[in-house]
Amino acid sequence: MKEIPYKIYLSEDEMPKAWYNLRADMKTKPAPLLNPGTHQPMAAEELAPVFCEELIQQELDNDTPYFPIPEEVYNFYKMYRPSPLVRAYCLEKALDTPAKIYYKFEGNNTSGSHKLNSAIAQAYYAKKQGLKGVTTETGAGQWGTALSMACSYFGLDLKVFMVKVSYEQKPFRREVMRTYGASVTPSPSETTNIGKKILADHPGTTGSLGCAISEAVEVAVSTPGYRYVLGSVLNQVLLHQSVIGLETEIALKKYDIVPDIIIGCAGGGSNLGGLIAPFMRDKILGKADYRILAVEPASCPSFTRGKYAYDFADTGMVCPLAKMYTLGSNFIPAPNHAGGLRYHGMSTTLSQLYHDGYMEAVAVPQTEVFKAAEKFARCEGILPAPESSHAIKAAIDEAEKCKETGESKTIVFGLSGTGYFDLVAYEKFHDGKMDDYIPTDEDLERSFKGLPQVE
Amino acid sequence: MKEIPYKIYLSEDEMPKAWYNLRADMKTKPAPLLNPGTHQPMAAEELAPVFCEELIQQELDNDTPYFPIPEEVYNFYKMYRPSPLVRAYCLEKALDTPAKIYYKFEGNNTSGSHKLNSAIAQAYYAKKQGLKGVTTETGAGQWGTALSMACSYFGLDLKVFMVKVSYEQKPFRREVMRTYGASVTPSPSETTNIGKKILADHPGTTGSLGCAISEAVEVAVSTPGYRYVLGSVLNQVLLHQSVIGLETEIALKKYDIVPDIIIGCAGGGSNLGGLIAPFMRDKILGKADYRILAVEPASCPSFTRGKYAYDFADTGMVCPLAKMYTLGSNFIPAPNHAGGLRYHGMSTTLSQLYHDGYMEAVAVPQTEVFKAAEKFARCEGILPAPESSHAIKAAIDEAEKCKETGESKTIVFGLSGTGYFDLVAYEKFHDGKMDDYIPTDEDLERSFKGLPQVE
Repeated sequence: MKEIPYKIYLSEDEMPKAWYNLRADMKTKPAPLLNPGTHQPMAAEELAPVFCEELIQQELDNDTPYFPIPEEVYNFYKMYRPSPLVRAYCLEKALDTPAKIYYKFEGNNTSGSHKLNSAIAQAYYAKKQGLKGVTTETGAGQWGTALSMACSYFGLDLKVFMVKVSYEQKPFRREVMRTYGASVTPSPSETTNIGKKILADHPGTTGSLGCAISEAVEVAVSTPGYRYVLGSVLNQVLLHQSVIGLETEIALKKYDIVPDIIIGCAGGGSNLGGLIAPFMRDKILGKADYRILAVEPASCPSFTRGKYAYDFADTGMVCPLAKMYTLGSNFIPAPNHAGGLRYHGMSTTLSQLYHDGYMEAVAVPQTEVFKAAEKFARCEGILPAPESSHAIKAAIDEAEKCKETGESKTIVFGLSGTGYFDLVAYEKFHDGKMDDYIPTDEDLERSFKGLPQVE
Repeated sequence: MKEIPYKIYLSEDEMPKAWYNLRADMKTKPAPLLNPGTHQPMAAEELAPVFCEELIQQELDNDTPYFPIPEEVYNFYKMYRPSPLVRAYCLEKALDTPAKIYYKFEGNNTSGSHKLNSAIAQAYYAKKQGLKGVTTETGAGQWGTALSMACSYFGLDLKVFMVKVSYEQKPFRREVMRTYGASVTPSPSETTNIGKKILADHPGTTGSLGCAISEAVEVAVSTPGYRYVLGSVLNQVLLHQSVIGLETEIALKKYDIVPDIIIGCAGGGSNLGGLIAPFMRDKILGKADYRILAVEPASCPSFTRGKYAYDFADTGMVCPLAKMYTLGSNFIPAPNHAGGLRYHGMSTTLSQLYHDGYMEAVAVPQTEVFKAAEKFARCEGILPAPESSHAIKAAIDEAEKCKETGESKTIVFGLSGTGYFDLVAYEKFHDGKMDDYIPTDEDLERSFKGLPQVE
């Protein structure tokens, strides 16, 4: 048996050359996006005013298993990828567990997270189409930062709508985006019609990803030469993020490691969907029987307490309807510090897989997540993002179960990013001022009433 | 000729097993530390109340070329090392230069810089000696963060005195240190005698590394079971940091790359001294003829405008005298944003080498540094620390000279850290509110008057 190093790196020529489209192997395909007016499946031409052409093809393609990574994107990947698969030797020791813990660390780039994997792909296709710029929303700011890097690289203009609570909690994110030449507006804003309406209906709102999406889409469709791009939820994003899982698979095989449990945090599903892609494939095809676990915040529990239904993707109801686990598009989550996990819905692909019993989900409260984050930081020397720390919390829980049962399971989790811009949250945690916001059943019933009636 | 990947990584078994002590190969050894009272060379026993025993041996040893890296330290290194040597393909393209540019990137760890290389070594020796804790100063906060990680790993208490201007510019650094369990006090403070005196003499001072060192030393010598540790300037620190240069040397040899110019930013000399160690050895031994270039801020120009003389290492004049290029121990630099380069003196080893003509130095103004930083960030996708950006600025200047002359030189520079905690500075730069503070000749003459008279 080969000795496992602390960090398993792939060489450049071991890096995946194509993204993997999990939908191609799904027995039940994810439900199609619907036109919000006609409730008919959206055709490519209907999506064209909003999205880039080639990204629409990727979005709608449920059959092609592999999409070659364009050379320009691949060269950019080589600047910060492959990311390491790390053996958490120190954490294992601190937990005194027989479990073997690995994490795929996506934080070693200036955007601080895995978001760059899709940002650079989307910017590339926008440039290829001859666009002048793109608009987007950002929650925690990781997606906005990543996209600003990507747009700067390809010389595209970028307008970012940033969820107001994150804009205020993370002032420095704005400066990183400015370093890369992006403009950043706190959402909801007075710069769009939908923003004005949301502010009128919900004075003092701290915003949500749903609001910010609506504003970004409005600007994209009303500005010539612009399109809207999105950092999560969509199939195309999961496609690009499959690079995480593919690299993980290669790294594990290199050392003959077979995982028992694969764990990822879940907001819109980009990190989780990317990480699990090849493992889910093997599970669907009956080649392996991994446990796959999604971890979400108790304050925004789409999988564990949401409904599997068609819903609006955004608060302004301008986007196509998507069938997903959702808390309702007018659910505005409490200001949990994991801004990247504050979306009311979930990837349609992951929703279908969860519905079909291929994966489990668990919701965890915020203070427990920060306890796990601090423990991890002290052992492994990486300050994790609050979002990623949801996966850490679940991984530690599983490792502690192994300690009780004496089982030596192999746990792989996604460490999707770093927490350098989350220190307001860490400060609250250190000062004992952090709350655990959990919506009541009444809160959810109220927001479920806003679900559209789809036959 | 082998194709050069974007990032050259070493495998774990290629990592250096010993640190290299450049002093062993120097023809003229650095001048000894002197007792500030008697002006006689400091003996190990005189240093023992302040420093850890084994570190004193390393400090005073001018003969032993290699010190094995202890296993505990080596295992910690494996969590974040080897660091990549990156080929700056995108920067080269943006500059349209025939130069080949490489950078050794030390920022991919939570402390955000190379400081962790020595922090973990120093914490290890403190633990081995059975100490309860250590004290230190920190400028930009990178050393304090690194040491907090190291002390947390080995279960040592840590008291940090942080230069007030950095404490205020970088509030989040404090939270990272708290995450790792350290206490952080802005310096000068009312908690020490020397701090009270400095505050009385200079009301409203924004502090300096020299002040903070005095406070940390005072607490160390007056608290049982504590010693003082330092992140730069000292020989022991350069010894530990040689891991940067050694890895760089191995990575270059792996691809048959021979550098022409080696560039590092210089504050106290830890990054520069570590990076150049094996290259300077070859130069001293006549085996190679590299150009070696130190880059310092125009606001704190020890090499380029300082005197080569014995001086106090700290403002409070409690530390041994060191012969170095110095601006005078009561020189308090203007609040330049490269907090890690605001020390009045320079490593005695590097000072001797500079004095003997083995290296060059250049001073650059702050706004030029930030222009280079932004250009670099947009090309290479890494947000650099202001300190490290001094090296970027010089590397770009050298690459542009190559464009003029048509020479295809190979430039290697040290990218010592990331700028995630420097966004107040980036904001000022973006808003056009950044000043270039440059001391006048009168300022320097005034501070030179404080130099001690040593025969």
